[in-house]
Amino acid sequence: MPEHTHLSLADAQALVMAHARTGEIEEIPLESAQGRVIARDIRANRDLPPYDISAMDGFAVRSADLAAGGAALPVVADIKAGDRPTAAITAGQCVRIMTGAPLPEGADAVVRCEDTRIDADGAVIFPAAVPAGNDIRRRGEVMRRDAVVLEAGSVVTPGVVGVLATVKCARVPVHRRPTVAILATGDELEALEDAFDADRIPESNSYAILAQLQAIGIAPQRLGIAADDPEALREALCRGLDHDILLVSGGSSVGVHDHVRPVLEALGAELHFWRVAMRPGHPLVFATHGDCRIFGLPGNPVSSMVCVEEFVIPLLRRHLGHRQCYRETVPVRLARNFKHAPGRCEFVRVTLTPDAAGMLWARSTGSQSSGDLLSMAMADGLLFIPATSDGLAAGEIARVQRIASNRFQETALP
Amino acid sequence: MPEHTHLSLADAQALVMAHARTGEIEEIPLESAQGRVIARDIRANRDLPPYDISAMDGFAVRSADLAAGGAALPVVADIKAGDRPTAAITAGQCVRIMTGAPLPEGADAVVRCEDTRIDADGAVIFPAAVPAGNDIRRRGEVMRRDAVVLEAGSVVTPGVVGVLATVKCARVPVHRRPTVAILATGDELEALEDAFDADRIPESNSYAILAQLQAIGIAPQRLGIAADDPEALREALCRGLDHDILLVSGGSSVGVHDHVRPVLEALGAELHFWRVAMRPGHPLVFATHGDCRIFGLPGNPVSSMVCVEEFVIPLLRRHLGHRQCYRETVPVRLARNFKHAPGRCEFVRVTLTPDAAGMLWARSTGSQSSGDLLSMAMADGLLFIPATSDGLAAGEIARVQRIASNRFQETALP
Repeated sequence: MPEHTHLSLADAQALVMAHARTGEIEEIPLESAQGRVIARDIRANRDLPPYDISAMDGFAVRSADLAAGGAALPVVADIKAGDRPTAAITAGQCVRIMTGAPLPEGADAVVRCEDTRIDADGAVIFPAAVPAGNDIRRRGEVMRRDAVVLEAGSVVTPGVVGVLATVKCARVPVHRRPTVAILATGDELEALEDAFDADRIPESNSYAILAQLQAIGIAPQRLGIAADDPEALREALCRGLDHDILLVSGGSSVGVHDHVRPVLEALGAELHFWRVAMRPGHPLVFATHGDCRIFGLPGNPVSSMVCVEEFVIPLLRRHLGHRQCYRETVPVRLARNFKHAPGRCEFVRVTLTPDAAGMLWARSTGSQSSGDLLSMAMADGLLFIPATSDGLAAGEIARVQRIASNRFQETALP
Repeated sequence: MPEHTHLSLADAQALVMAHARTGEIEEIPLESAQGRVIARDIRANRDLPPYDISAMDGFAVRSADLAAGGAALPVVADIKAGDRPTAAITAGQCVRIMTGAPLPEGADAVVRCEDTRIDADGAVIFPAAVPAGNDIRRRGEVMRRDAVVLEAGSVVTPGVVGVLATVKCARVPVHRRPTVAILATGDELEALEDAFDADRIPESNSYAILAQLQAIGIAPQRLGIAADDPEALREALCRGLDHDILLVSGGSSVGVHDHVRPVLEALGAELHFWRVAMRPGHPLVFATHGDCRIFGLPGNPVSSMVCVEEFVIPLLRRHLGHRQCYRETVPVRLARNFKHAPGRCEFVRVTLTPDAAGMLWARSTGSQSSGDLLSMAMADGLLFIPATSDGLAAGEIARVQRIASNRFQETALP
């Protein structure tokens, strides 16, 4: 690839995703499965309900006995939820029955307590007739034994957890989480645990990236800060290469103090790209070394976070087994003009305000300096301006990726 | 309160929220602050940048030297990011400077490498003039020492984590998470760890509730299953009362085997309501005992989850310090008619499909049986039908709460 080629965003994303590998299957306790992706079809282990049950607190009857209206029937038993289906009635009898309790043999309908009254000698009066099947939930109505109830690829939501408990799936087959290491680089950086020095630049990128990945269910390992020195960097990179993903913040430009690219090449990594036609997002390196996928991220905090949004999170979600890997975009109306010169696509930090009709109006957060992390903290989303655009006008409809959202889609921008 | 009064949804939610108490302040490591709520204003501990810095890789110059165009200046120093601001230039000199490096004294502009060339004897040629201030980022441009950079009540997003690292907030003041216990009740229930018995009902509610709360950052304790027996229930409830919130699944109806209400009363709990005019969602008990808030939730899986959505999650989010406590609603267009008789408000499980314009179309998941947990697993949201409605027509706009979303709003429905 010639040194000055800029890949388009879409080509760069496709190249990264071509190196994704969905994690192998592991079984984890149901109690910690929330948010994971199911790796095998899950089948019902029983009919549910296991027998015909009452849908109400009331009385189980033979509907034929009530046909004339005003029937008075003696109560011959009392069935509650948890009782085995052993009771029975014959013509002219009824049983008291609780919601979820098994219907007695011979009964074909349930009448709610509220629709009955008790006469002086304890018999139950049924003023009105009911059809057969009234207020009964049938065996197997919710699920049938051996039927697939959850397909491989399903995301484990709370409702899915309930279904898994229902079929006694105490250990859930899911795709293994990728391991991720984060390395910061730069002599100018002051670590969080260092003594305060007003002249230095606080290292914040590794913490922001950590939080971006925690928010999608990944627990990365921070490797600290490597000095701008090839030997120190080589040693630090080597500690990261046994992870599935290695994120390196800073040092990937082409300046004389930017050692990430040459050191990666010396270690035998294959460099796939180092220029993408997007802003912010320069410089961005993508490389592989054995089973490790390596990103050299920009040192600017906002650029770093945008690259994580557009490249790293989709890759990680694919490893987790998700079909929907890219942050969801929503249509918005622009409250102002957004200038743009054709060339690179652009991600503009915006706030979103809904109007009465529910339409979201997008406004710039103000400063779009890639050093201004506060603007990233204020932003509701990233407005996407295509590479070919010569600017967007107030009132136009455009698309925004909501950041810090947990909703994703299958297709990348645009 | 008379036995048969049904509280409106809004009144019941207001009554629950009146018993909320925002958690006391604790300090936690920055690495685990993602998603929490900041409990005190956070101020900058420094100017950022700490001095004027270069925004580009290039050359720092005196802009007056370039005014005529074609200036050739010798390079008298090389400044990189991390160097202290000690260099200086005088008229007719320039220094090589990296992005983020301190501007040398005497310089008032930076020219990018790409806009220069080097002549045969090593001097730098500047073909064009630049204005003073070109490609410089000013001291304090991002933040000023002692200014509030994050207000109390801010949610810790990844961007906020970056800002906290920037101001060296290694331990973050947040509101303590409430402790939550979950107790299931019912003789008919088979525990996940019990041997399989096709005639019993698997206990799934406590797992679904666990996942609902895990998704908002709470780690509840499961107390297992209590038998339908006043003494067993009393003992189990007592184990839950030392938590901030106690959730009891099942046993809250008025049947002869429903002991939750009488046992809570015998324990000295104050019952605030036990009937809400909503569907699904019956029966629902809300009580307090000392500092413990107690919910008696319906035994039906879907009803239980809906009550957790509408009452428990808002209460827990208020404890966590959030201003936005209620699940966000979005406008949708109805693909079909939705029948409804005035009386109770209703939450209908729906799927949502966007059209080309981004409008979401809502369709029922099919079965709305409150025992059908599969429909809850399939649903994208809950369509809200107000208590006064006599049905919604296809094509109408209505509102849907997205479940399993991480977006919340300040106001409850409607």
